[in-house]
Formats: sequence, structure tokens, C-alpha cells
Amino acid sequence: MTIIAVDPFYLKMPQITDAADGTQDTLLVRVQTDEGITGWGECDASPLVSLSAYCCPMSHGNIINIRESLVGETLDSPNDVVRLHQKVLRNGLDIQQIHHAYSGADIALWDIVGQKLGEPIYRLLEPQSESHSKLPYASVLFGDTPEETYQIATRLCAQGYRAAKFGWGPMGKFGEENDVALVRAAREGMGEDAQIMIDAGVVWGDDYGTAYARAKQFAQFSPTWLEEPLAPDAIEAYMGLSKRNPPVPIAAGEGSGTYRMAEDLILHGGIQFVQIDVGRIGGITEAFRVRQLAEGHGVQYVNHTFKSHLSLAASLHVFASNESFNLLEYPAEGSDLSLRLTVERLKVGSDGKVALTGKPGLGVHVDTGAMSEYLVPVRIQLGDQVIFEPVEF
Amino acid sequence: MTIIAVDPFYLKMPQITDAADGTQDTLLVRVQTDEGITGWGECDASPLVSLSAYCCPMSHGNIINIRESLVGETLDSPNDVVRLHQKVLRNGLDIQQIHHAYSGADIALWDIVGQKLGEPIYRLLEPQSESHSKLPYASVLFGDTPEETYQIATRLCAQGYRAAKFGWGPMGKFGEENDVALVRAAREGMGEDAQIMIDAGVVWGDDYGTAYARAKQFAQFSPTWLEEPLAPDAIEAYMGLSKRNPPVPIAAGEGSGTYRMAEDLILHGGIQFVQIDVGRIGGITEAFRVRQLAEGHGVQYVNHTFKSHLSLAASLHVFASNESFNLLEYPAEGSDLSLRLTVERLKVGSDGKVALTGKPGLGVHVDTGAMSEYLVPVRIQLGDQVIFEPVEF
Repeated sequence: MTIIAVDPFYLKMPQITDAADGTQDTLLVRVQTDEGITGWGECDASPLVSLSAYCCPMSHGNIINIRESLVGETLDSPNDVVRLHQKVLRNGLDIQQIHHAYSGADIALWDIVGQKLGEPIYRLLEPQSESHSKLPYASVLFGDTPEETYQIATRLCAQGYRAAKFGWGPMGKFGEENDVALVRAAREGMGEDAQIMIDAGVVWGDDYGTAYARAKQFAQFSPTWLEEPLAPDAIEAYMGLSKRNPPVPIAAGEGSGTYRMAEDLILHGGIQFVQIDVGRIGGITEAFRVRQLAEGHGVQYVNHTFKSHLSLAASLHVFASNESFNLLEYPAEGSDLSLRLTVERLKVGSDGKVALTGKPGLGVHVDTGAMSEYLVPVRIQLGDQVIFEPVEF
Repeated sequence: MTIIAVDPFYLKMPQITDAADGTQDTLLVRVQTDEGITGWGECDASPLVSLSAYCCPMSHGNIINIRESLVGETLDSPNDVVRLHQKVLRNGLDIQQIHHAYSGADIALWDIVGQKLGEPIYRLLEPQSESHSKLPYASVLFGDTPEETYQIATRLCAQGYRAAKFGWGPMGKFGEENDVALVRAAREGMGEDAQIMIDAGVVWGDDYGTAYARAKQFAQFSPTWLEEPLAPDAIEAYMGLSKRNPPVPIAAGEGSGTYRMAEDLILHGGIQFVQIDVGRIGGITEAFRVRQLAEGHGVQYVNHTFKSHLSLAASLHVFASNESFNLLEYPAEGSDLSLRLTVERLKVGSDGKVALTGKPGLGVHVDTGAMSEYLVPVRIQLGDQVIFEPVEF
């Protein structure tokens, strides 16, 4: 097959707030081939900045846009996807946004090859492997107060969730007592048998002393992990925290925009869970490399997903074949945009777990009718030259 | 003072080629205050992608553009510049391009505060300090053959350069014998008293065994350093190389788009020279932090500069006050755009060294007349809404 078109689409909700809700807008990427097979992917990144990486004029040999690198290329096999990943990154060596932006296209390429070969993506990554369903954990924000957090937790519990992650909001902002009360409320609302995770939302910067103190306090509620207590780049602080042996496992990595950032956290940050967003790190190709690294270092791979079920499926393919990587971040809530974007959804089964659809490629499809309701028509002109304008879908 | 406007300007040469020449286009950033003081900065990055980070719509609380973070803010002191750096990076946490894009604005803020306080920037960074002139090294490509390399070296020597860096081209591509002949030619052409540097252009990937073998062979020609023998992200390979104690110092770091990337190289890569591009890492604020880290670890800080003399001045302010950091990468050649962009140029003095102008702020000024000849009028529309259009200057 030959790649004949690569099109990013900027979608958004009518109103955007500064809440930590990544489903308010999105960038979808569609890749088309000369054999009529179309693939889709989604980026978890600024839509406009990422879209620019698809159409920016060449600056020199290290700043060449993604469209230019892909259109006209041959795409028949997993090897082609990996080769094109290397080509795009080499041509975009000096485009810092390249990994965020390319994530959607890389996912779309895997989707195409899976459809062509009649295989789900996880089996392209690891031939002959089986897919294992995962325990979904609902990912929600803390309520503004412990009481509100308790209400959220009881609701999730009533909905049947056996695991839930609470994050951001007031955590870390009003002192130790409030922090502890928030976690207690989450545990009490979810009940003793559930798994709870705490996401501190990078609130303690590089202050690993405070992070350690909170971990000690939180341990009484047996959280599965304490997530991002420190800034994404504060790797030395992560190592400082790790050397104190905190009584709660530490999770981090969602901000990894490159493979090295994840490697750095695993080798020098001393984390126990590495959380990778397939829509940021450069797609399935790069996320799978991190999974392999995690396997070699006794670290559990977990997805980070706060987008549509297109991203959820892409995320799950990366580690579906490893049974011991048993947890799945599950976007339980989200904007209408994120909920309506796919025809299929990965629903929680009667066993309380989530599995892939089993169809070739990603196994979920974009609902282009719904998509059209959220489309932002982007037009970029350099003088008289139009370098980006809306296309049909 | 209050910041009243933040405007990025995309400039380019009429023709752009894929040659490794970063002076073919640029992104300038102008910041204006209510007291009439204007500052300028320059990014070494994709102009369009970086410009998008100045005007992209909010996606959520971690994707807020640079303009929105800066306009209306107070700017009176170095502390304000550091505070605004933190604010912009926090608001742009999930914009991967944020460091590349913000570099120009950060430099402009330092320029403004320097003008306001009547001090050159290096003295804002380190109060009461003195500026030391630096030995410029010409940065050139290897010739295709040892003979051509010898000719280039003798020409540079005749032009008065007492230091020169030779890089890329055939290095690493035709075996050990040719590699050694190239370095021998550089040394013989420059003479015994000159400093020569070897830039391997990331040619050995993560093969640090070969990098070590070459370092041993090159040692007989006493190069000041061997630069980027390995891929920018191959930090573990750098450490492997470093542990073998190569007889030639190792240099790297020009690709550092974040402070952590430089820190990672220093702490875990075992390098002896760290090369920072002030137009990529997030401006003077972040580059100065790397300088301080280098000072604490016995590593020599060197600039990476392949833009106009606006960038050269910004680069030099970062380490002008440290006499032992005595080398300056000097863009000896470049496009008309880069040569004409500033009113002042930092010329090589009669002592063979390069110094700052001594004027407040950056100490060099944009030639807006020349600038207008290279301007690309960018217009970005989302539906009927114009989110970016050309402004006057």
C-alpha cells in the first residue's frame, strides 16, 4: 500500500474550562492508503500546536513536517510502521512537539496494517499472543472537599467499579490534614475491598520530603500507588524519594513525551508503576518499547488515558498480551465529544473487566457523524499561501 | 511595568534547503511594556510550531498559551522573569513545544529588565560580576576527504581562527582509517597551537564501543573534545562510554529542550562539556540553571548557537561572568537573514576574542528594516475566529 493522505482534525467542545479534564478537545489523525484502507489515531496534546507539526514549512534537514515524511511512503507491515517512526523522528529532530504530534499518525498506521493483515494490533506487536482483559480503574478528580470526594467514591462504587483513582483538585493545596482527609474519604467511599490510587498532580514539585511524609500518612489507606507527587522533570527528587523507601508504591510517567523520559524515570527515578500515554510518547511504537523496558526492570506498565475510546483501545493494545500488567486507566467520565467519538466502546464486562473488541487493527472506529459536530475548521495562511485548510471526511 | 503585548514574528529566506543550516529561517519574539521598553528574543525552533504555542486555544488547565500567560503580568526584576518562566511552563505543562517556543520570550523579558535597570543581562544573573571575553571557535563541516578537510583547516587558520570544530560529513561512515585521517588533516591544517574539536554528528547511535575506540585513536591529535559520538537520547550509552574513561573529553547537549535533558547528560551521561542552545532550552533562565549545574559538577558550559547575533549575545550573557568557561561557538557564516538581523554584531576583537557590547539588556538590537524584508505574514483562523494575524513592528 501507499500512503496517499495524512489529515489531522481539531475537535472541541463549545466551551472549554481550565479544569484538569483532557476530554474537552482533541486532535484526531486520519491516514489514507491507495487500497482504500483508512486508519485513525488520537493525540493527547494541544490540537493546534500538534497540527502545525503536520504542515509547518521546512526550516532545514532537521525540521521537516509529518505529512511530508509520510505521504507517498510504502506501508504493508509492522516493520514499515517502525521504519516510518524512525524517519519522522529523524526528519523532525528539531521539532520539540514531534512526539506529541506524531502519536496520532503512528496509531493510525498500526490501525491500517492491522486491517490489512486481519490482525488486532496487539498481535502485530507480539505475534501469536493472547489478549488479557484488565481491571479498569475509574479516573476521577477529587471533590473540592473530603465530603464531596466521599460522594464521588460511593457513586463509583455503586456503579460497580472495583478500582478508582482520585486526583488533582485540592490535593496538596491545603495542608497535610486536608490531604489525609481526602484520601480517607476516597477509601471509605470505595470500601475496603476496592483498589484506590492517589494522583497528587505534581503538586509537591521537587519537595520529596513532603511527598515522603504524605506517602507515610496515606499508607494506612493502602492505596495501590501514589502518583506524580513530584514534577515530571524532577527525576533526581524521585530518586531521593525512592531511596527513602516510601511505604506506598510510586507511579509516574504520563508526561513522558519521549522514550528517554520514561527510561529516565525507570532507571533513575526508582518508580514502581510507569504510566504511558500512547497519545503523547509517539504512539504505539514507542509505548511498546517502554512496556518492554518495564518488563525487564520489574516495573508495572499502566496506560494513561484521558481521551476517547479510540485512545483507550490504542493504549490497551500496547500491553494487552502481558497478563501481569493487569490495570487499565479507564476514562469513566468525559465530555460528550469523547463519549460520542467512537462507534464501539470498550465497556466493562460482567466480570468487571475490560477487553479489546477482537476486531482487526484498533478494533474501534470513529463516528464521523458525531465528529462533524465538534470540528474546528482550521485555516493557516503564510501570505497568500494556504498551508492548511479543512478537508472532507 | 506591565506586559502589554507578546508578538512572535516568522522570518525566512526566499529559498529553504534541507542543508544542516539553521539560519535559513527564524522566530523572533517581541515583548512590549506599558513604559515603552521593548525586548526581543530568538528561538532556534520550527517557527510555525513555536508560534502556535503563543496563540493556541486553551485545552484545559495544562494547555494555556504563552501570550495568555504573559500579557497583563508585572515585570520589574529578575525575580519576575523567573516567576513568569515558572508560570508559563506550568500553564503549558502539556505543550511539548513550550520550551522551544518560550525561549524567545524569556530572552526578551531579560532584555527588558536589563534596559529598565540599566544593566547588561549577565550582571542581572550574577550581580557585580564582570564579563570575560571568549575564544570563538569556527564551526565547520569536515571536507568529503582528508585532503579537503586539510584545505578547510588551513583556510580557517589563515583567517586567524585559533580554534575550530569539524563535524558531520564523512565522519564515522567509512571506517576507522578514514576517521583518523580526517582528524589528522584537521590538526595538520590548523597547526599544533590551535584548538580543534571533533563533532561526530551522533553517527555511532548507541554503539559506545566504537565511540571509545575512536576516542583512543583521536587522542594523538589532542582534540579539545569529541562531540555527540552517540544519539542525543542514548544517555545510558554515554554512561557506558564514560565509564571506560576515554582519553578525549566528551561533549554533548545541543538537543536539550528541557533542563532535565541537560541534567540527565551531566549526571548520567558522564560528559565533560555541556553544549546548550539558549533558543531551545527555554531561554536564558533555564540555560543559566544548566551553567550553575555544570559549575557544581566540574563540567564546562559551552553555548550552541547557529542563529543571528541576537542569539549569540543571549548565549554569551549566560556564561560571560565565568572566566574558566572560555570557549564560544561562533556562527562565522550564515544566511543574509541571520547576518542582517541585528544592528550590532559581536565581532572578533584584535585579541582574537569575542566580548559583549556592554550595553544594557542584550546589548544588541533588531534591525526592523531588514526584518521586514524576511517577514512571513502568518494568519491562523479557527472558523470565523482569527487567532493570529500579522501586527506592526
